[in-house]
Amino acid sequence: MRNAVGREIPDELLINGREVFQGNNYRDGMVYTKSGPTVKACTNPKESKLVESIREAVKLCGIKDGMTISFHHHFRDGDYVANMVMKEIADLGIKNITLAPSSIGDSHEPISKMIEEGIVTGLQISGIRGRMGEVVSNGKLKTPCIIRPHGGRVRAIEQGEVHIDVAFIGAPTSDEYGNARGTGGKSDCGGLSYAMVDAKFADKVVVITDYLVPFPNFPPSIQAVDVDYVVVVDEIGDPGKIASKAARITKDPRELMMAEECAKIMAATPYFKDGFSFQTGVGGASLAVNLFLESLMKERNIKMKWAIGGISAPMIELLEKGLVECIVDAQSFDIDAVKSLGANPNHYEISTSQYCNPMNKGAFVNKLDFVVLSALEIDINFNVNVVTGSNGMLIGASGGHSDAAEGAKCAIIITPLVRGRIPIVCESVTTVITPGESIDILVTDYGTAVNPKRQDLIEIFTKAGIKLTTIEELKNKAYSMVGTPDRVEFIDKVVAVVEARDGTIMDVVRQIKPFEL
Amino acid sequence: MRNAVGREIPDELLINGREVFQGNNYRDGMVYTKSGPTVKACTNPKESKLVESIREAVKLCGIKDGMTISFHHHFRDGDYVANMVMKEIADLGIKNITLAPSSIGDSHEPISKMIEEGIVTGLQISGIRGRMGEVVSNGKLKTPCIIRPHGGRVRAIEQGEVHIDVAFIGAPTSDEYGNARGTGGKSDCGGLSYAMVDAKFADKVVVITDYLVPFPNFPPSIQAVDVDYVVVVDEIGDPGKIASKAARITKDPRELMMAEECAKIMAATPYFKDGFSFQTGVGGASLAVNLFLESLMKERNIKMKWAIGGISAPMIELLEKGLVECIVDAQSFDIDAVKSLGANPNHYEISTSQYCNPMNKGAFVNKLDFVVLSALEIDINFNVNVVTGSNGMLIGASGGHSDAAEGAKCAIIITPLVRGRIPIVCESVTTVITPGESIDILVTDYGTAVNPKRQDLIEIFTKAGIKLTTIEELKNKAYSMVGTPDRVEFIDKVVAVVEARDGTIMDVVRQIKPFEL
Repeated sequence: MRNAVGREIPDELLINGREVFQGNNYRDGMVYTKSGPTVKACTNPKESKLVESIREAVKLCGIKDGMTISFHHHFRDGDYVANMVMKEIADLGIKNITLAPSSIGDSHEPISKMIEEGIVTGLQISGIRGRMGEVVSNGKLKTPCIIRPHGGRVRAIEQGEVHIDVAFIGAPTSDEYGNARGTGGKSDCGGLSYAMVDAKFADKVVVITDYLVPFPNFPPSIQAVDVDYVVVVDEIGDPGKIASKAARITKDPRELMMAEECAKIMAATPYFKDGFSFQTGVGGASLAVNLFLESLMKERNIKMKWAIGGISAPMIELLEKGLVECIVDAQSFDIDAVKSLGANPNHYEISTSQYCNPMNKGAFVNKLDFVVLSALEIDINFNVNVVTGSNGMLIGASGGHSDAAEGAKCAIIITPLVRGRIPIVCESVTTVITPGESIDILVTDYGTAVNPKRQDLIEIFTKAGIKLTTIEELKNKAYSMVGTPDRVEFIDKVVAVVEARDGTIMDVVRQIKPFEL
Repeated sequence: MRNAVGREIPDELLINGREVFQGNNYRDGMVYTKSGPTVKACTNPKESKLVESIREAVKLCGIKDGMTISFHHHFRDGDYVANMVMKEIADLGIKNITLAPSSIGDSHEPISKMIEEGIVTGLQISGIRGRMGEVVSNGKLKTPCIIRPHGGRVRAIEQGEVHIDVAFIGAPTSDEYGNARGTGGKSDCGGLSYAMVDAKFADKVVVITDYLVPFPNFPPSIQAVDVDYVVVVDEIGDPGKIASKAARITKDPRELMMAEECAKIMAATPYFKDGFSFQTGVGGASLAVNLFLESLMKERNIKMKWAIGGISAPMIELLEKGLVECIVDAQSFDIDAVKSLGANPNHYEISTSQYCNPMNKGAFVNKLDFVVLSALEIDINFNVNVVTGSNGMLIGASGGHSDAAEGAKCAIIITPLVRGRIPIVCESVTTVITPGESIDILVTDYGTAVNPKRQDLIEIFTKAGIKLTTIEELKNKAYSMVGTPDRVEFIDKVVAVVEARDGTIMDVVRQIKPFEL
């Protein structure tokens, strides 16, 4: 069945009430009953939650074949916890595990081997890359991987579509009762936003820390009332690897030019006024927008009320300069953000449900004025791909892209027209992650295009003397530069299902056709 | 059927899995599935949560005959919200409402009339007093009132035994999205601990504030993700009435003598060491224990790690003097506590689930070293009554009495032997709220008795030269002073069911026999 972004969704996926994507806001107002975990009461004051080892915790939680396990990815490429836990599970001969972490990074290569061995047979995740992306793209995972945006993950957990049997939560500090925080230890990761929902909805919750502190460890991100066991290990992760290369501000003059243009465009909208709110992605160009915003804010004598999202140094700088009143943080993207969250009283941690769950009673993204995001591909319908390479391989994560884009009054994609020999603006994206209706503006190094559904913005920009082009022109320009790309060839087998925020099906990723000489 | 504290529980109450009280820890380790609210998704950024009036909110929530409504009692006798809401419900002709507030106070007399009129036909509550106590004691409520301790209320809500259709939450500050706090406004009440659970488990949540602040109102006690509507009214309550007379330190030399004795007893236990934890009730004598503890702590050069509970000025003073490291606050009992919670970074708000739910994975009370509590009656089995007068009338609230008593390593009751002509230490309490097995020590103005189950403490005190008596001797002394009390006469009808923390039945309160001349 064809969905609202024109993708053909195989009928065999449309079971158990599953529907194809019908457009944003289709499920606004939907009434549902929240799920609840099955928990074991702990009235007895004498029992300790401290257990000897991860293996002991795995046993005490009764992990067995077929269960669903979760982790958080606040340590990004520096996480040690998922590998440690999965090693114990594998060593105990347990198999057929579904992993439902918030995301997974380059450090989790050992798990890709477990996929090939059938220890891990299901993946419900924000995205995958590296070796694991290759393994899944080549059809090695027994069941199709389910890719959800951050908001969709929380939604699926709260609605009971994903039932986590055991959540393992790496925590920079914890007391022996399980009150856990992302700061104050030797391996701080900032907030524990993703894990907050796991702690509330998983049947069993294990906190793994490398820095045990006296009770009570307050105020806790993860509350003892939700924690079954606490394990102390040598090291839970390397905070030095939280910041990826992508999370640094670019020095590339072309990217800086785009960032400047983007800031100018923002400043021309009616949303750029005192008290506006803002989110930026971590791509070099989008992060650089902060720099140019600063001078425009000073020029107009306005301040930002709140900034949200993955947070990194440029935003911390605006906070410290008083140009943004507060930061609400769903993920600390570098050490500066980690430190600020632990120290600055105007830097708040929020859960990912507060951040972007589309089906609670109102997430922060619904209140956003601007979001600036990057793209792997954007097509002439403004549909955006951030998960598959133009060769069809799973190489990225959905993250909060579609959440913030749908919520924000003004969602801007900033990207060079081509990367290497690949046209970024194209006829039709390999995989739709964020539907075109969520995107308002595309800023490239060859011009800016506004989504035709935003005639109001087109009028405003035209009056302001801002030169616009169309997305078709940008696509034509890209194709004229690097040629019309060949269509990627897939075989029929679906290796990943891309869910929209609301749980409908946005797209599928099929197995890559083996290369033939 | 006779329960573990010797009370006869009518068989007709033992339906739907209801059991009689079997002793503490009977349901420790019980496995159950948490309840979840039925919610309406809000994806649409444009919709406002602000509604014109309480009446409008009542209508939008679809309140109808037979529903269950909740309030919190952080304003105690100064609350305006419950009356305002109930007036609208009554004016709309809605009846057969069950009220499930955390508690109710003297300001809610209009509701007692609604009980007589059949508008309110069910009460699930921590306790009742005043006119409402009389109405219920005289059998005017259509169904038996269910009295639960604070921990039992949270448990019942989380387990789905109490399903709140609509929670009305009076909030000193809120933004228009429903992020609400107990401080920062014109009518601050401190924390919103009781309301936290209502917000998470009620189908509909209405925040009522008299001080709207810009979005985001952070960090919130009540999160916007759980709030359906926000109403702004002129005044939500009178903070001046939060502090009851009971919450002031006594100047009565007899009470001070008991408090001093109590502190000495505490200091003789092995629990009185650096890093101990402490809760005190608000009765004059129990509150005065703080004073004497201070000098003993200085003498021994030790500090308290954390204090918990209803919090009032004497504890704030210890915090400010650095004698207690942090306060975890489930209810601010006076203006000093309210102010401190809004200002002191070592004064934390917790939910009542964190405070004392006996069926989550570990509440704070389980970690308590000492609690000092008062009593309306205590009997020779150390069973305590804090709900009915010795005339059988409902005059008090269960509160966190049985929660803290069960959790604490050392639970001390402090009370004069007689009050007026009434023996407080007696043969058998009118109503059992806290079972004797939870109580370790009784301090009176005529001596101290230790529960025989605590032979360890008896030995320690004897070695320390502390003079002890027995509870039978204390009872005999009381009776010799004021005479053996007549048994209160009741008729058969059960007007209130007293639930233990774990949901089993601890006792029943029967209708008072009309006085005959």
